Amino acid sequence: MKPSIPKGTRDFTPVEMHRRKFIFSTIEKHFKSFGYLPIETPAMENLSTLTGKYGEEGDRLIFKILNSGDFLKKADHVALLQRNSNKLAPSIAGKALRYDLTVPFARFVVQHRNELHFPFKRYQIQPVWRADRPQKGRYREFYQCDADVIGSASLRYDTEMVHLMDEVLYDLGLKDFTIRINNRKILSGLAEIMNISDRFTEYTVAIDKLDKIGREGVLNELVKLEMPGEVLEKTKEIFSFGSADEAIGKLDEWFGNSETGKTGLSELRYVRNHVQHDELRIARFEFDVTLARGLDYYTGSIFEVISNEIKMGSLCGGGRYDDLTGVFGLQNMSGIGISFGADRLYDVLLALDRFPDFTGEGTELLFVNFGEAEGDFCEAMVTRCRRVGINAELYPVNAKMQKQMKYANAKKIPWVALIGENEIKSGNIRLKNMETGEQWDLSEAEMMDIVRR
Amino acid sequence: MKPSIPKGTRDFTPVEMHRRKFIFSTIEKHFKSFGYLPIETPAMENLSTLTGKYGEEGDRLIFKILNSGDFLKKADHVALLQRNSNKLAPSIAGKALRYDLTVPFARFVVQHRNELHFPFKRYQIQPVWRADRPQKGRYREFYQCDADVIGSASLRYDTEMVHLMDEVLYDLGLKDFTIRINNRKILSGLAEIMNISDRFTEYTVAIDKLDKIGREGVLNELVKLEMPGEVLEKTKEIFSFGSADEAIGKLDEWFGNSETGKTGLSELRYVRNHVQHDELRIARFEFDVTLARGLDYYTGSIFEVISNEIKMGSLCGGGRYDDLTGVFGLQNMSGIGISFGADRLYDVLLALDRFPDFTGEGTELLFVNFGEAEGDFCEAMVTRCRRVGINAELYPVNAKMQKQMKYANAKKIPWVALIGENEIKSGNIRLKNMETGEQWDLSEAEMMDIVRR
Repeated sequence: MKPSIPKGTRDFTPVEMHRRKFIFSTIEKHFKSFGYLPIETPAMENLSTLTGKYGEEGDRLIFKILNSGDFLKKADHVALLQRNSNKLAPSIAGKALRYDLTVPFARFVVQHRNELHFPFKRYQIQPVWRADRPQKGRYREFYQCDADVIGSASLRYDTEMVHLMDEVLYDLGLKDFTIRINNRKILSGLAEIMNISDRFTEYTVAIDKLDKIGREGVLNELVKLEMPGEVLEKTKEIFSFGSADEAIGKLDEWFGNSETGKTGLSELRYVRNHVQHDELRIARFEFDVTLARGLDYYTGSIFEVISNEIKMGSLCGGGRYDDLTGVFGLQNMSGIGISFGADRLYDVLLALDRFPDFTGEGTELLFVNFGEAEGDFCEAMVTRCRRVGINAELYPVNAKMQKQMKYANAKKIPWVALIGENEIKSGNIRLKNMETGEQWDLSEAEMMDIVRR
Repeated sequence: MKPSIPKGTRDFTPVEMHRRKFIFSTIEKHFKSFGYLPIETPAMENLSTLTGKYGEEGDRLIFKILNSGDFLKKADHVALLQRNSNKLAPSIAGKALRYDLTVPFARFVVQHRNELHFPFKRYQIQPVWRADRPQKGRYREFYQCDADVIGSASLRYDTEMVHLMDEVLYDLGLKDFTIRINNRKILSGLAEIMNISDRFTEYTVAIDKLDKIGREGVLNELVKLEMPGEVLEKTKEIFSFGSADEAIGKLDEWFGNSETGKTGLSELRYVRNHVQHDELRIARFEFDVTLARGLDYYTGSIFEVISNEIKMGSLCGGGRYDDLTGVFGLQNMSGIGISFGADRLYDVLLALDRFPDFTGEGTELLFVNFGEAEGDFCEAMVTRCRRVGINAELYPVNAKMQKQMKYANAKKIPWVALIGENEIKSGNIRLKNMETGEQWDLSEAEMMDIVRR
């Protein structure tokens, strides 16, 4: 039997793990620094919790878990006779793997509302699963790193999200990126004044493709959708907006009769005025009226971050939602959140060679094994080294020196201790620096001092 | 829709998360200190990777994942017509959730053997899933924390496991626990000399129940199994063994003709002689010939740890296996590993009240919001606080003081900064210690100094 893993999933070797831990711990540090607290939810949710939250496409991509035991006993018999997989599934699979962290979070908030204090700022770093067709950069198991605050409509949190994204991406080592902002109410206002409010989703899906298919592509798409002539006119005008200030001025004119549009603009202005532009580490912070974001539940600010150093899609995204918990029975809980895609960040940092050097994360000191008696002599010293904070190990058997050194090199161990018969007699330890090749004869305390430095 | 989660699974609130992170980080620290490197494997494995590795009972408890798309198209039609769930399952569910970390590790080693250097010391901290009937202390999703070394038969690693368990459990705050050791070859030797080698599993399963059903219970069980009279005689004698030395002496006599038994005893002696008894932090380290461990793949040393402070089953277990990778096509890879059950450790530490205090893990400093202008004034200071390492936040709106203080208390925030009109004029900050109620008027630098201490 040749071992393999399901397509779209990955093993992570120690080197990859160190890089991933760097990403997670950097993100976590800033989540904490902004006052977010950790939660976790189960990998499995009841299928009914997830169904209908991600659109038709999303429903299809949810991994369902077969009921245990004699699952056919309660199967939908009509669906079975019809050989209708879609109809049969819910009757033989009552649980499913979580598809994102936002819906489980909304479920969590409603279920635990009496234990929580609002506004509730939570972060969550866990894998999600999607039965998408695997391709470069798209996996069936991947990690999301989310921060959300729920139970407050204050725009100060919209502003906070900008700073949070800026701090995290700066600290990860990115040197040029743009945080794009838009507001769903501005898009709704546009749809209103173009008289296509009933076709809002179609329109936003079309302009959301701007990055991929360009202006001409979007306009063609609108023609194909048989949008009214005014939509094409206005969209062309939008594409020709110069500065953000010009865009805002123009939209202000257009939104004369659209309350929604005007509210959107006023929210946008608040966030632009409150972001501490001088304090931003790196980010270019830009209003982009063509930013739409796919998810239906957004109702206010929406965000997206792209790298200007490398073309790799969105590194982080999010937005405000006014009623995510409503479907679970809790109304009036406005919230806002962002989500970092750890796997795409990994690909970007690797391509840009921005990962720090990880020497010293593993074993720091290897004791060479010169034989049974010498090995026994070293054992207690290994224990003492560990207790002063040195990651240490003894090679298990008296193998050839070359083999033991190869082991040290393969594990990138920076220090090697050599204790043979002579060293036991003299009480000295020969310490070798594996990078420079230098060697010293030292007391145990001296050796520990050097390795710890 | 009333929100709920699948039975046997749990949400973790921030308080629970902090306790869990304490367990994981303590275990991880020592895994690293002993030279183990992290890996991760996907939550899903191919069903064929897992089937047949955990016994019949285990196979039944594996969670299977329904194939996506029109899964009935490739379903086993005979099984469908027979309404045979067991037979149908593999044809409609090709993937499954991992059941433990050991089998995926063996699969990983074989698949990545050319990238790894042996002996390979890895640790892995990930959830596993089992469709067990949920009950107190038994969950359908739970975390395992495993350390294994593969590619060496050296008994030094058997010894190392004892010290690793001792250090971890000491550092977690346990004050009295026993590490039990036995050797599968000793059990095989016993079966040999009692002429029941063909009934080895039955016998070990029976004596493994000693903790639960007592001596009489085990003897009754052996009678029920119609074991030969000699088995009862010898088992009674085993129960009456006094010290470990007496047991070893007696077994030595019995094993006159059993090579396996003698090898087992000699391995046991090596580990007992090499454990640095004086260096053990806490553990009582005891040979227990009745320790059997359920899993079939163990071939040498086996371990189990129990608390002497509280009755809670095994906190950690493991053992040596000679051929775990054989089924995946790689022979002669002896390995040894241990596994900590994070969820049981959680229950033990909670019951014993051994979790450290977690103040300061969340927000350390809350800025009270006295109004739009005051709030705006604070924003930049919040950013500066975060950049000197203080977890800080501004209350988003000008709510009543009582409400803002309630927020600080609910989040256990130790410091609160009050900056109203007067403070903005004077340039001073009023800092309040939430525990003592003391207040001071300070400069920004003085405030930062105090909060950071």
